Amino acid sequence: MPERHEPRGFMFPRSPEGRDSIVPAPPWHYSGEMLTIEYRTEPARVAELLPAPLEPAAEDPGAVAVIWADWQSCSDSFEELLDPVRSQYKEAFVVVRCRYKGDTYSRCVYIWVDKDFALVRGYHQGYPKKLGEIWMTRPVTVGRAGPRLESGGRFGATLSASGRRLIDATFTIAEPSEGAGFVNAFPMLHHRFMPRIESDGSDALQELVTMRGYDVELGPAWKGEAAIRLHDSPVEELIRLEPKEMIAGYWRSVGTFWKAGTTLGKRRG
Amino acid sequence: MPERHEPRGFMFPRSPEGRDSIVPAPPWHYSGEMLTIEYRTEPARVAELLPAPLEPAAEDPGAVAVIWADWQSCSDSFEELLDPVRSQYKEAFVVVRCRYKGDTYSRCVYIWVDKDFALVRGYHQGYPKKLGEIWMTRPVTVGRAGPRLESGGRFGATLSASGRRLIDATFTIAEPSEGAGFVNAFPMLHHRFMPRIESDGSDALQELVTMRGYDVELGPAWKGEAAIRLHDSPVEELIRLEPKEMIAGYWRSVGTFWKAGTTLGKRRG
Amino acid sequence: MPERHEPRGFMFPRSPEGRDSIVPAPPWHYSGEMLTIEYRTEPARVAELLPAPLEPAAEDPGAVAVIWADWQSCSDSFEELLDPVRSQYKEAFVVVRCRYKGDTYSRCVYIWVDKDFALVRGYHQGYPKKLGEIWMTRPVTVGRAGPRLESGGRFGATLSASGRRLIDATFTIAEPSEGAGFVNAFPMLHHRFMPRIESDGSDALQELVTMRGYDVELGPAWKGEAAIRLHDSPVEELIRLEPKEMIAGYWRSVGTFWKAGTTLGKRRG
Amino acid sequence: MPERHEPRGFMFPRSPEGRDSIVPAPPWHYSGEMLTIEYRTEPARVAELLPAPLEPAAEDPGAVAVIWADWQSCSDSFEELLDPVRSQYKEAFVVVRCRYKGDTYSRCVYIWVDKDFALVRGYHQGYPKKLGEIWMTRPVTVGRAGPRLESGGRFGATLSASGRRLIDATFTIAEPSEGAGFVNAFPMLHHRFMPRIESDGSDALQELVTMRGYDVELGPAWKGEAAIRLHDSPVEELIRLEPKEMIAGYWRSVGTFWKAGTTLGKRRG
Repeated sequence: MPERHEPRGFMFPRSPEGRDSIVPAPPWHYSGEMLTIEYRTEPARVAELLPAPLEPAAEDPGAVAVIWADWQSCSDSFEELLDPVRSQYKEAFVVVRCRYKGDTYSRCVYIWVDKDFALVRGYHQGYPKKLGEIWMTRPVTVGRAGPRLESGGRFGATLSASGRRLIDATFTIAEPSEGAGFVNAFPMLHHRFMPRIESDGSDALQELVTMRGYDVELGPAWKGEAAIRLHDSPVEELIRLEPKEMIAGYWRSVGTFWKAGTTLGKRRG
Repeated sequence: MPERHEPRGFMFPRSPEGRDSIVPAPPWHYSGEMLTIEYRTEPARVAELLPAPLEPAAEDPGAVAVIWADWQSCSDSFEELLDPVRSQYKEAFVVVRCRYKGDTYSRCVYIWVDKDFALVRGYHQGYPKKLGEIWMTRPVTVGRAGPRLESGGRFGATLSASGRRLIDATFTIAEPSEGAGFVNAFPMLHHRFMPRIESDGSDALQELVTMRGYDVELGPAWKGEAAIRLHDSPVEELIRLEPKEMIAGYWRSVGTFWKAGTTLGKRRG
Repeated sequence: MPERHEPRGFMFPRSPEGRDSIVPAPPWHYSGEMLTIEYRTEPARVAELLPAPLEPAAEDPGAVAVIWADWQSCSDSFEELLDPVRSQYKEAFVVVRCRYKGDTYSRCVYIWVDKDFALVRGYHQGYPKKLGEIWMTRPVTVGRAGPRLESGGRFGATLSASGRRLIDATFTIAEPSEGAGFVNAFPMLHHRFMPRIESDGSDALQELVTMRGYDVELGPAWKGEAAIRLHDSPVEELIRLEPKEMIAGYWRSVGTFWKAGTTLGKRRG
Repeated sequence: MPERHEPRGFMFPRSPEGRDSIVPAPPWHYSGEMLTIEYRTEPARVAELLPAPLEPAAEDPGAVAVIWADWQSCSDSFEELLDPVRSQYKEAFVVVRCRYKGDTYSRCVYIWVDKDFALVRGYHQGYPKKLGEIWMTRPVTVGRAGPRLESGGRFGATLSASGRRLIDATFTIAEPSEGAGFVNAFPMLHHRFMPRIESDGSDALQELVTMRGYDVELGPAWKGEAAIRLHDSPVEELIRLEPKEMIAGYWRSVGTFWKAGTTLGKRRG
């Protein structure tokens, strides 16, 4: 009698040869461009997004980063790079900071992407991803249809979901920068959860996890002035994070690598 | 000091008022049209999709149903029906049967949808959903640009993902039918799982669940001849379910209701 | 020496066998569902959309119809019906009335569709089509996720383009209706034009044409109360047609057939 | 009595303030990246795409270029750059050469784009555009998820339309290059046409035009080995241009500017 093989694969659907997984198994390599816009909102508006026992950051607790990224990503096979529908995606996400057991973390509270593999990869990492339509100006080196990476270069960035514009932003380069902001600079602290199929208000999976990228390779960063407008939607509470004071905008090329995070706590379902 | 409120919502992202959840809380109502095509493949090709301790169905173990559905769905608020981008979606899915503890179940092994709320609602129910582009002919009552629901009415149905056509099918109505096939007629038996964030090959969530629709309201069914072609893709193993013998096709309007399933087993992460 | 064959096809691209045409050759058959919302705006806002010598309608010159349609269409081969990505499309369009040489016509001033074949077919007919994302509630016969075609049935309809919501509307059925409105009830009077490639402000093609559907087959119509909101966009002037007084809404299934229109006038480029 | 103003705008829809035009008025600026793959097919397969009096090129008459481009474009207002959904688009197109009155021209025979403004801008220029889904690998400067612009850098490029993959291609950089191929290097020779609305087999507009970009600013070019596979579709004859011998692939950044072309001939409708 032939040996029985289990369906396999990193993620669903698990299949005989394991090729069907909606996202290939880690490690995952990323190369892309990030536009970060930082501002301050009412600290209470950040605090209300933090489930206990997370606490607001000790300093500048109302700081928010809204980030657009235009990525290529791939597995260790690198084969996705030659079928770029499987490697290119864009995302827009909102990051705040929090404290847990005395340490400061970054935490993604809202995020939109434009591919299914990025959506489910995010669920593995605790990112609360939805689908959206993300656009960001690209710098150019020839012609007039785009900014140069130099003082005066102007960028636009937008987010829409379900046919509604949610964010409009602009960024103008002023000067080179050492870094690209402080809000998204800590290890991420995320919850991963899945409600019980009994739909009884409790979760079958409820984990506190932390993660960060490794082998980060950074291009030169640029800093400048930014403006941002948040728009309302019946299915988003994003506008509660109303900007009170702009901090700055940043643009940088980023390469990174992700393999695994760490489970900090787990509530048994 | 003000009372601290936790972010809330059925699904991620959990937010201050709970409006951000990618899918509203159950119960969910569904009304739509389903085209079911049943055929037989090699029974071993079905068996290789069943993780232990699931066993192939005792009778006709190579039976497969490929189903297209064009849905409206909504929560108990019914508000999604007036913003139809949030209620309409299409899906194509592949169902087989299996045995577990002496009972026969239906099991969805592959499924594609075209909206994010449907994707994540499926994860709650154990459906291994990907995004796809789904098309199915609609019956009409006036004009010549579509089949009538009567003998001779011809329908097409297709599925694409990542810019590749995966399935082409046709169906021709022969006669009224009592039912709409036997493969998708049992309670569903699904696994819900999420790999540990440590990406170490084990799952943080690993559940066996069962579920079915309630208050099913059925329109008249039609039966007829069907043809189906499966196409290859580097990221799909669908073509392993190669048709050896066609059974029949069915078309029917379906209304249903879903609130909760039942956890049959759980492996602690 | 072999005979030389010209590339052929109804529309571009013309190709050796003529199969590449972005839209198959007429005649075209249509079957679908139409939701019509009529209201009155300032008559001057309609008049400013009419190039001379077109004049506003003699009666009720501020009447506007905003129409959503969910179509299947096909050529005389009917083959598109079995590959429904080539036959199904949705559109939302704005119609006003005008007078020309003593006769009253309907005229489409803005229109959005979601497929390229519909876009270019529209250019042939003088419709000024753009791409958009169109949604309209569908009536259902089973289940609770949709309205019945009966008094109290509620429908939503929306239009977005470039990630911006442009129109939100609702319609509630009150009673059966003889007709489905008066604004879109006349033969269409359209301009077809194409600027000279010299981009010198003159048109290489500049025609006044009229057209209408033939062999129209109508299902029962329903009438009721409608509400509509127009939203702003940097690339649309739709909001100039601000509603001052609602007239009514109508829902009806429509089948029709189109083969040719008539050129009324031509300015030589 | 107030002066009557005509609806205005470069392209349809013409509107009171002229803001509705599906594409802003020229001039248009372009900055982007182009991947060109050149090969030889049977010369007869190129000749059958050339309407009389166009003749095949005197030398290498079977040469074909398939080109992917990832563009930003904008008008002289440059405002589209800050709302990048209106400036970014991708295209894939097929170019051959021909002779007319003793001169050699390039001619685009098939082309797919992913935005409506690019589609209609193409119609102004005589490009026979359809909508498609276009992907091409981007070079990166940091991280491992993409090729460097250096020897060994590997790129993939794909085209799909109506949910069918039409082209898969790969390119590997071997060395710097003086140019980026010879097939798309001549002024374009296009037909612009629109069938009469009488749909009687004759064209209301039928022009022979020529055009080229100006103020072209070129980045360094790279040359290397390319592979390409064409796939069948019921609505495309692309596979008739079957590759018999590969020539080479090229990658280059390109900036250009377009304002106007020249009408060479006109057949009165």
